[in-house]
Amino acid sequence: MIDLEQLHDCYVKTDSKIILLVVDGLGGLAHPNTRKSELETARIPNLDAMASESACGLTTPVLPGVAPGSGPGHLALFGYDPLKYIIGRGALEALGIDVELKPGDVAARGNFCTVDDRGTLVDRRAGRIPTELSAPLCQRLDEIQINGVQLDVFPVQDYRFVLRLRGEGLSEEVSETDPQITGVEALPVNPLSNRATRTSDIVNEFVKQAKEALMEEERGNMVLLRGWAQLPDLPPMGDVYKLNPAAVAAYPMYRGLATVAKMEVIPTGKTFSDEVDTLHKNYRDHDFFFIHYKPADAAGEDGDFDAKVKTLEDLDLLIPRLRELNPDVLMVAGDHATPAIMAAHSWHPVPFMLNSALTKGEGVNGFSERDCAMGSIGRIPATNIMLLALSHAGKLTKYGP
Amino acid sequence: MIDLEQLHDCYVKTDSKIILLVVDGLGGLAHPNTRKSELETARIPNLDAMASESACGLTTPVLPGVAPGSGPGHLALFGYDPLKYIIGRGALEALGIDVELKPGDVAARGNFCTVDDRGTLVDRRAGRIPTELSAPLCQRLDEIQINGVQLDVFPVQDYRFVLRLRGEGLSEEVSETDPQITGVEALPVNPLSNRATRTSDIVNEFVKQAKEALMEEERGNMVLLRGWAQLPDLPPMGDVYKLNPAAVAAYPMYRGLATVAKMEVIPTGKTFSDEVDTLHKNYRDHDFFFIHYKPADAAGEDGDFDAKVKTLEDLDLLIPRLRELNPDVLMVAGDHATPAIMAAHSWHPVPFMLNSALTKGEGVNGFSERDCAMGSIGRIPATNIMLLALSHAGKLTKYGP
Repeated sequence: MIDLEQLHDCYVKTDSKIILLVVDGLGGLAHPNTRKSELETARIPNLDAMASESACGLTTPVLPGVAPGSGPGHLALFGYDPLKYIIGRGALEALGIDVELKPGDVAARGNFCTVDDRGTLVDRRAGRIPTELSAPLCQRLDEIQINGVQLDVFPVQDYRFVLRLRGEGLSEEVSETDPQITGVEALPVNPLSNRATRTSDIVNEFVKQAKEALMEEERGNMVLLRGWAQLPDLPPMGDVYKLNPAAVAAYPMYRGLATVAKMEVIPTGKTFSDEVDTLHKNYRDHDFFFIHYKPADAAGEDGDFDAKVKTLEDLDLLIPRLRELNPDVLMVAGDHATPAIMAAHSWHPVPFMLNSALTKGEGVNGFSERDCAMGSIGRIPATNIMLLALSHAGKLTKYGP
Repeated sequence: MIDLEQLHDCYVKTDSKIILLVVDGLGGLAHPNTRKSELETARIPNLDAMASESACGLTTPVLPGVAPGSGPGHLALFGYDPLKYIIGRGALEALGIDVELKPGDVAARGNFCTVDDRGTLVDRRAGRIPTELSAPLCQRLDEIQINGVQLDVFPVQDYRFVLRLRGEGLSEEVSETDPQITGVEALPVNPLSNRATRTSDIVNEFVKQAKEALMEEERGNMVLLRGWAQLPDLPPMGDVYKLNPAAVAAYPMYRGLATVAKMEVIPTGKTFSDEVDTLHKNYRDHDFFFIHYKPADAAGEDGDFDAKVKTLEDLDLLIPRLRELNPDVLMVAGDHATPAIMAAHSWHPVPFMLNSALTKGEGVNGFSERDCAMGSIGRIPATNIMLLALSHAGKLTKYGP
């Protein structure tokens, strides 16, 4: 775990290189007809061959039985205890659309909603108005000015937006305005601690002005705000591990999570193939790379077993391009399982493999949940994979005399 | 873990007997040519037979990915959290040459070094002068007297010595004098906390007098001091577990680690065979024995795969002599892995087996990393093996009503 001070003297800077490939939603569950999981069904000769000469195991993202979101799932892989370092919903929503969050900024998830002329909530999602209609409304809200704070409103999708407050002395400790039911008024914002009074006043003023700015609208004539969050203050991954870490991710959310760990984010294209190209081009400049593969999670969330199998086969074709870089350590990990039969993130332990010069003799038969359970690493907390990577790369020396 | 107060009422004194055999550096890694580890290569029929009727598993000394030194490796097996109880380098160096450390004593690792006539470091190891030359210099340093403190200097090997300070109100929180590079002067000692001022003054005075005492020497004409350490204050193993524990170890380091846990150290000979004889002779007088086997680690550290295999085969021949004592619990454990292909301590989980009347039905095929991974115990923190031992010996009763 990254904040174990006892280990800080054990980290050493070396020239060795580590690649962490995170396959989003990697783990799965057996299909009831075939009794084979997505990984067991997919034809993935390159991943299987790699597993035969890798230290393999299963990672537990948070705790057995706890399905994580993308935030805790990734923080754990980077070594941060996901029960200690928490990224609030507003902050994660902002990261997901590439909105910059600086320390101290406060972000909230916003919904456009519909109220009647007495202010009673009729529709908490404003009839799910499309982005074409909501984006101009965001523009209007973005123009609201309140003394002593910078207010910015960013469209997300359909009825959703992000509100970002920037300025001195702001606090995330304010209450939400969304009553979660219709037939009542939106709630006023209240401070949840003494130091949040000013933020609370600012947000109430914002809501008042937003209501005025939107009153002529038919559907999106009011806003609801929730998930108030500041970025957690994480020990920088590069400082602690003595690395110069970089992230290559096509999706904004994962670039955002990398910035939370204070990695350098390298601009890249829209596909994993683009990411691999980016990795090749920048390989000399860093000693740790986090590279992210999204499609497996998306197919799993859709509940499409065959599609998830296909995403794994697509990934497999690009594994040789990662291996040809010949990194000292190449890890394949997942932030969580997304079993297609659940169509959701799950709590199941996630297959993991670590390939290095030292692991040639420790392989298993293939890369799957069942095979990895037989691997030499066993079942470990996801927060420990960076320790394994650093050790295998000669960057973590003996603890204690 | 030994300091879990919730369990203290569960420990009971009984007549049953426990033997913990620690095979130093027990675990290994597959040889790349044969894909077999040292344990898998060795002919060890007695250990294999024992594994077939033992509860087997793998122990993690500190955390996955963290390779421990001898100190944390052994403390963990005795039940002490190695991230909480830390033995500093100076203290371990002292224990390694049988120098007594009492609570409050401060020890440092010393080097003789060479400085030029302006005091600039020319050689941090004084040309690695041999013990024959350095021992008389230690004698000279040992004669230095400073008011209010007892100073003792003990030769270790070649250019290395141990400085021990004994007296009231000493502190380990002082800075090191070794600048780690040549071409500069040795550093003065500074207090790192308010209560270390006096210790700091004492050490600076010692260094001044040492310089004078050594100034006519050609190579060892100055000293460097580092690794300041006091013994950690551990809950005594015997008190907590309600045991009368004894240690049998040919090497001073491991006798020292046993004294840290407040075990009684029984004098023995130079070989493991001597240790087994000592165990037999003293078997009636204690209910817990820690017996230490060193050669496996030494061969592993040398990177000599075949030699490590041989040490395991040698050990195997003496296993019947341990079993014939018919202890209620006999454990075979390792403080860490020392894979010959790494020629170093490593982070890999270490094979473990516990034999008792209750385990006759829970064996595996042999005693190796792979076999133990299939064992009934699974993978556990090394800090938990004492709980298993006490339970199997009827010395740890039900927790909670």
